[in-house]
Amino acid sequence: MPIRVVAFDGDDTLWHSETHFDVTQTAFRDLLRRHVPDADIDRRLAEMEMKNLSVYGYGVKSFTLSMLETAIELTEARIPASDLEVILGWGKKMLLEPTKLLDGVEATLRELSEKFDLLLITKGDLFDQESKLARSGLGELFLGVEIVSEKDTDTYRGIFERRGILPSQFVMVGNSLRSDVVPVVELGARAVHIPYQVTWHHEHVPEESLPKSGWHRLESISELPALLDSIDHKRG
Amino acid sequence: MPIRVVAFDGDDTLWHSETHFDVTQTAFRDLLRRHVPDADIDRRLAEMEMKNLSVYGYGVKSFTLSMLETAIELTEARIPASDLEVILGWGKKMLLEPTKLLDGVEATLRELSEKFDLLLITKGDLFDQESKLARSGLGELFLGVEIVSEKDTDTYRGIFERRGILPSQFVMVGNSLRSDVVPVVELGARAVHIPYQVTWHHEHVPEESLPKSGWHRLESISELPALLDSIDHKRG
Repeated sequence: MPIRVVAFDGDDTLWHSETHFDVTQTAFRDLLRRHVPDADIDRRLAEMEMKNLSVYGYGVKSFTLSMLETAIELTEARIPASDLEVILGWGKKMLLEPTKLLDGVEATLRELSEKFDLLLITKGDLFDQESKLARSGLGELFLGVEIVSEKDTDTYRGIFERRGILPSQFVMVGNSLRSDVVPVVELGARAVHIPYQVTWHHEHVPEESLPKSGWHRLESISELPALLDSIDHKRG
Repeated sequence: MPIRVVAFDGDDTLWHSETHFDVTQTAFRDLLRRHVPDADIDRRLAEMEMKNLSVYGYGVKSFTLSMLETAIELTEARIPASDLEVILGWGKKMLLEPTKLLDGVEATLRELSEKFDLLLITKGDLFDQESKLARSGLGELFLGVEIVSEKDTDTYRGIFERRGILPSQFVMVGNSLRSDVVPVVELGARAVHIPYQVTWHHEHVPEESLPKSGWHRLESISELPALLDSIDHKRG
């Protein structure tokens, strides 16, 4: 069956996200180092984020709350409130940052939207993701938008059922092996992995647990139309 | 046309929410009063929440971040980090609180689910709302769940289109005139208002701007099945 639906992840697939986290985390490290020069700040923040994931979920607000908690814990509450105010400000700045599209995104999406139904399937904070999509100018190209709290096989199965999609008609495009590739291939659909320059530690997948087939890897989204053509051609 | 879909708001319609905010806000007032005995703490927090709404959206994480910012601003950053840590803890406690259903909710929903398609249409933080629904034990009773960032006419229109619902087949049940009644009646559907014991200031609607007809007010969700019967009966 020919491809009918092409779904895209948002963060670090269509627009830059992790680089903003990275920049903020560097500033956080510099600020904390003045108080606790010997602490392994990155490790402690990563541990805090993991510990809080089941309470806060994903997103900038969760990240901000975890930075604040790490800062208080690492300094044994010696950090002045003025420094915590700076951290609060970083969170807001990230939320207000213009949505910066990756190279080739707009042209590729416009081209593909003439041939396929496009979906956005993105994880994270509902309010933040809707706001980013609105600021991206890409909204009208998507037939549907699914903002989900986790991208696992249950999530994708639910989307297939709700939208009447057969796995063989579906291709998921994203930068995360864990969220965009593995569960999709497991359901018998196809996935295209386009790695981003930075990967959040939580999204790493050991190479040996990757599916053997059913997915492709591209360097840039601009190569996607040709790949989709070749998939449909081989089957036809 | 007979009623086919009955949709419910979550917070303060099916389960208690505002009382948790209220309890936390009382504790916040007590904590801040020690630092700034003369400040109008409630007003300052309310203003901060309104100011931050366009950046943070709704939910407990947003509320926690606004409490922290208010505390720092009101004390001119003199508040010790240990007090801010306490506030962070309140936020987590709210997010982990068991979902406490309002009286009559479970029996009413079970009864209605045999006759109507039930939807949950709730505003707020995606992760928090999904988690509350999961803990409520009501998940299986809903044909669909819509967690939205704002409940206005566009939101409801989108849900009607996506789910193939005619306004005349639809009844929305909730505690907020602003979110559950006014936009729904505007679209020609029906609404049932069940006031909660506490209303968030942001959700107040002046009486004169309420629709003249198309909605009903009940004291308890237990009265809902009889009301729906009488609506269908009058039309039939």
